[in-house]
This record gives sequence, structure tokens and C-alpha cells, in this order.
Amino acid sequence: MPGFRVGAAASGMRYKDRPDVAVIASEANDGAMASGVFTTNRFCAAPVELCKEHLEVNRRCRAVVVNAGIANACTGAEGIKNARETARLTAEALGVPTSSVLVASTGVIGQQLRMEPMAQTLPDLLANLRSDRWEDVARAIMTTDLVPKMASTTVEIGDRLVTSGKLVTIGGVAKGSGMIAPNMATLLAFVCTDAAVTPQVLDHWTRRGADRSFNCITVDGDTSTNDTLLVLASGAAGNAILADTESNDSRLFGQALEAVLVELARRIVMDGEGATKLIEIHVTGASDEASARAVALTVANSPLVKTAFFGEDANWGRIVAAAGRAGVPLDPERVTLSFDDVGVFRKGMPVSEPAVEEAASRVFKQKELRVHLDLGMGSAAFTAYTCDFSFDYVKINASYRS
Amino acid sequence: MPGFRVGAAASGMRYKDRPDVAVIASEANDGAMASGVFTTNRFCAAPVELCKEHLEVNRRCRAVVVNAGIANACTGAEGIKNARETARLTAEALGVPTSSVLVASTGVIGQQLRMEPMAQTLPDLLANLRSDRWEDVARAIMTTDLVPKMASTTVEIGDRLVTSGKLVTIGGVAKGSGMIAPNMATLLAFVCTDAAVTPQVLDHWTRRGADRSFNCITVDGDTSTNDTLLVLASGAAGNAILADTESNDSRLFGQALEAVLVELARRIVMDGEGATKLIEIHVTGASDEASARAVALTVANSPLVKTAFFGEDANWGRIVAAAGRAGVPLDPERVTLSFDDVGVFRKGMPVSEPAVEEAASRVFKQKELRVHLDLGMGSAAFTAYTCDFSFDYVKINASYRS
Repeated sequence: MPGFRVGAAASGMRYKDRPDVAVIASEANDGAMASGVFTTNRFCAAPVELCKEHLEVNRRCRAVVVNAGIANACTGAEGIKNARETARLTAEALGVPTSSVLVASTGVIGQQLRMEPMAQTLPDLLANLRSDRWEDVARAIMTTDLVPKMASTTVEIGDRLVTSGKLVTIGGVAKGSGMIAPNMATLLAFVCTDAAVTPQVLDHWTRRGADRSFNCITVDGDTSTNDTLLVLASGAAGNAILADTESNDSRLFGQALEAVLVELARRIVMDGEGATKLIEIHVTGASDEASARAVALTVANSPLVKTAFFGEDANWGRIVAAAGRAGVPLDPERVTLSFDDVGVFRKGMPVSEPAVEEAASRVFKQKELRVHLDLGMGSAAFTAYTCDFSFDYVKINASYRS
Repeated sequence: MPGFRVGAAASGMRYKDRPDVAVIASEANDGAMASGVFTTNRFCAAPVELCKEHLEVNRRCRAVVVNAGIANACTGAEGIKNARETARLTAEALGVPTSSVLVASTGVIGQQLRMEPMAQTLPDLLANLRSDRWEDVARAIMTTDLVPKMASTTVEIGDRLVTSGKLVTIGGVAKGSGMIAPNMATLLAFVCTDAAVTPQVLDHWTRRGADRSFNCITVDGDTSTNDTLLVLASGAAGNAILADTESNDSRLFGQALEAVLVELARRIVMDGEGATKLIEIHVTGASDEASARAVALTVANSPLVKTAFFGEDANWGRIVAAAGRAGVPLDPERVTLSFDDVGVFRKGMPVSEPAVEEAASRVFKQKELRVHLDLGMGSAAFTAYTCDFSFDYVKINASYRS
């Protein structure tokens, strides 16, 4: 990715013998334009507070420092002091303002960062950043994740009739395997691009992309104290700066960013704690988007629906029952439900043909499937992504702190 | 219970060799005063619709007919016809108006009742009702329940200075082991009393009792299509009719009814699908009751909190994180959390003393425990009851329809 250098190292702060601190640095002297979306949890972690504070006074970011293993959440004044010290150490080594350094953490809640290992790790790490170490970053930020998560795309922008188009790259890494497992999992995503873009336009597409990606997924319905999405734009592509949300180029950029965020979000769900399947809950025919969203997320979060996916039981009854308790006006007579292309419910009743039951069972044996619920009330739609609820989910979460 | 006769029989409609149809009948010619609270699910089952229709035109109930195994939900016009036919057959056998018969069902969604077994079973069953068969009723309405659930109490009402007090009995049965498992579980409760009470007063205490019992429990956060609470009052105790919600006698009756409903609700949670523990989530210091309720139920429904209970992991981080995402304004600095009498969190940070961690771990090994979360914002409170989330929950629900 032009304009960025990255790296990872093992601090030994909590894990033994594995990288647990990652850095993403902008090469430009004045840093990259930064935009952030953060957790709405009222117990927001110290690094989230510090990111908000820094972005308030400085939209240019020179470096992001991420640690895995200790979340630095519910850690009071000492937690904030340690987050600030991490930024200060980084800023000092790079010779940049502290406000241009952002931090993120994931791991156990309620434990303090260990600053001695952090201070010993940062100078070497910062001195050895390279442009091709993205997979190291993706691995260093993992906790209960089973696989590193990366995604990227390239899009050509600029009016090719007047000037030549410019190739813009967008790519990033993410981690997370529960929406929250406050001990060991959190949703973190860091996406970089070489596009040149104003802060207002970057905020617009970042917020919109988050709403259509990370805000559409659920593993267990919880929201972490540490959830953080940062998007950094270096401008190294040399495109005419994107300064308007309505221009074609800006839309192209927004779509490409959204595609990367959706891909990262899907990878998080596929790697959900104990997950064996990825399920798309597609709600259409709602009277408004809020209703579509409420129904999709109620279905996506229902433990009964999720255990049925795990059991490969094409249990339409649990899906309509979950839709029925979403707090949205529904007329059962107008609702239709299908699994991939197999219609299983219409006019308030199941489609009770043996061939339908068999076809539905086959769909439920797939690794990925699509539930389509049409409410027959209007034209609004929403798609949520979820995974199944397995023995391993219970196993992972019943015994995590030990 | 004076004024009622009950019984159960095996119809073979779905289960083999076990009672699956139960009847609760009032002995009085004009029946018992009836009050009902029903599911808020938009897909409400045919028997629920019929109960509402009958109670609209006739508040006196001569009989309640309950079947287990088939829920008669999502069954369209034929479902309503079958519910109506069940009431008609019962009314004919007893020589009473059809509107005085109420019906309830629990079991698989989307299957029609089999009316031939029902018609063959009812005459004998109705001819052999007795006053001492409550446990048979409690057993006949079970589905995934492991134990029958009964509770009763007696209270003396009436001004003993002027007249002699009258002993009033309140007792009933319930079933349910998920808030919903639309295939095989639903919350049903039938409570009878010999008190004489007006319909308005009975409605008042029934609604209030339901709010403080069944509406405070959760196994998996789902709401069934069939949930039904019926309270029948025969008047056989001969007390001066309770016609005022504010009188001392009326309050005594309301408290006794609430005690029976709370006991039945606790038994449902203790028998929750896969449950190994009963946990009370006690939220105090909220700015209003709605906030207290939102926080308590968010904690009570969190899969991460519930798996930690199963793992006997005194994981305060998951509890404060769940509270933080309940959508209620919170100041982490004011929140305190304790497990039974062990304070584990205050002023935004854990109480990090080894003795505290050990004591908290001991509390988590108990079969019943109390989580007390004080928000420090006001004086409103709410208590929710929940159970843990175990391997068996997944096992039961992954493979239920097969």
C-alpha cells in the first residue's frame, strides 16, 4: 500500500512467543487523513477515549499502535495514563506530535497494560517497519481469532477524458470473533488507502461503510468496550482530492471502501467463536429500514435460530417466531420465507410439501446460506450476517479467563 | 382446590404412551371468573386467538383444555377451526356455552392438531375429572421440561374484627423450559383460586403478577407464539367479593397471587433448557424502572454472561460490558457490582484483591447466586431471573425437530 509502512513484534506482555504489538505508520511527514468509528458501549476503553481525544484536535495520523492480550478497559485513570504513554513513546521515537498517534487494544478487560514490555518493544519495532508486513499485523492483533483477516481492492478514479485515471488502493486488516467477548475478543479494523480525500468525505464514507458492514454482523449480539474502526488515507495515489460526497469519483471510492469493509466483516463472522456456517439474513418488504434492521438482527441474534443452523435443522418456525417478537408490526398473512431459493412459508403457513422440506434440509447442510424474509409491508430492506451457535461457542466462552 | 376438578389423558396425537391432554374445569354452574395474559409475538397461535375471542364475550370460564406436542401456531384458518372444534367438543360434553371453554397448546409450530385423537380422548377425560389430579395436569403439559411445576399458597382475608376471616387458596401449574423453543417449548401457566373477585380486580392482579414474575425471567430471550397465563377464580371460598384494588384484602390476594406466579416462574428458569444454575440479576440505583429493566434483561440475556455462569467464571467484565450496551445512560464511575455479598467492581475499576477473586469464584460455584448491579443514578430497581447457557442448551436446540 503506497504511503504506509507496518510491522509487528512480540512484547511478552501477556502472550509468550507470539507477536502482540502492531504498528501502522504513514510515511508522509504530515501523516494520513484519519477517520474513526468507535464502540457505543458506555464502558468505553481507555484507547478509544484517547483516539477520540486525538482526532478531535488532529485529523492527521502518523501511526496507529495496537496491542492484543490486554484490552485496557475498565482501568480508570491509570488506563488512560498508559494509553497516553504508549502514544507518547511512539511519537517520541518517530519525532512526531503525540496527537498524531492513535492506539487500540484488545484482550482481557480490567487489567492494566504492562508499560515496561511496551517501552522495550516499540523502538525496535518502529525502526523496522516495512511496506509488505500486513499479514504480520493481521496476525499480531488476533486473540480468539483462528485466522488472520485481510481484504483489499483497487479502483480507478479520475475523469479519463480529461486527465488519466488514477489507481487507488484500499486495503486493511481486522480482528474479532465475537461481537464482544470482553475477555479476549473485540472488533478492531484498520483500513488504509492511498486516495487523497478531505476529512468530511472520508468521515462520510467511513460511517456509511461501517453501517453497511460491521454494523450488520453479529456473533452473539454483544458490543465490545473496545470496538474500533480506523480508516487512514495517505493521498499518495495523486488523485484530485475527493472533496464532495456526491461526485462520481467519490461514490466509486465509497463503494470500494464499503466492499473492503464488508469483506472484512464477513471474515469476522465466518471466524465467529465456534462458528461452522455463515448465514445471510436478508429482510425485504419492510415499511422502513429501521423495521427491516430490527427484524434481521432479532433473527440473527436468536439463540434458538442459531442453534438450529448448527443442527442443520431447517426450522422455519424459529425464524418466523423471532421475526414476530422484533417489535415491528407484522401481518403473518403477508410474510414469505425462503432458504436460498426454497420457499418454505407463505400466507401465515408452512409450505407443507415433502419435496420442500427435503430441499430446505439440503440448503441447511451448506457452509453458507441465505435466509430471505419478505414482510410484504413496503419496500425497505436490510441484510444481516450471522453464524451458528455451536458446542464450541459454549466451550470457548465458558472457560475463557482460565 | 375448592371449586375445580382436573385431569389428564393420553391422546397419542404426537407422543406415545404419555398423557398429553389436560383439562381444568370449574365446578360452578356459571364457571369461574377468568383473566388472561398472552404472548406479544405477532405470530400468535390459534389457541391464543381463540382465548382472546372468548374472553372478549364471556369472562366466566367452565373449562380449560391444554394439549402438548403440537402448538397449533402458524396453521392458518384450519388451525383456528381446530382450536374452535376442541372448545366445541368440550362444551358439548359438559353442556356449557362454547365461549366458556378456553384452550392452550404447546409443541411443534406449523403442524395441525389431529382432531380424531382429540375427539376420542375428550369424553372419557371430561367424565373422570377429580379435585386431586393437579400433578397429572402439570405432567401432561410438559414438552422439553424435565420436571412438573406446581406452586400454591393460602392466605386469610376478611376483617376478623367484624366477621371471621376466610382462607383463600391460590395454586397452579406451569410449563416452559425456554422462553420459547418454538418447536417444543412455550410458557404456559394455569392458576386457580377459590377467591371471589371481580373481573377488574382479577385483571389488575393478574397483569401485575405476570409483570413481576413471568415477564422477569429469561432462558434465551425469545418470546413464544403460544405463551399463555390464565387465572381462574371460583369464589368457592365464600369471601366478600374483592371489588377494589386498593383494599387491604385485595392487596393480600394480589401479593399471594404474585408469590405463586413468582414461584412458578423461578421453577421454569431452574428447569431452563440445559440450565445448571439459577441466577438473580438485581439492578438498583437506576433513574427509572424502564432503565433498570433494560439493564437487567440485557445482562440476563447475554450469551457471554450466561456461558460464564456455566463455566463458573466470575467474569465481571462481561456483566459490566453488557450493562454498558443496554442503551441506558451510565456513568462507569458510579457503578458498583457484587456477586452475593462480594463486591467486585467500583468506581469504574475492578476491586483487584486476590481474596476478592477467590470469594467471587466460590459464589460462582453455587447452584443459585445473585448478581447485584447498582447504577448509582437514582432509586429505581428491577430483578430478572436467568439461567446459564450450557452445552446441553445447544444440544437440545440443535436437534430438536428430529
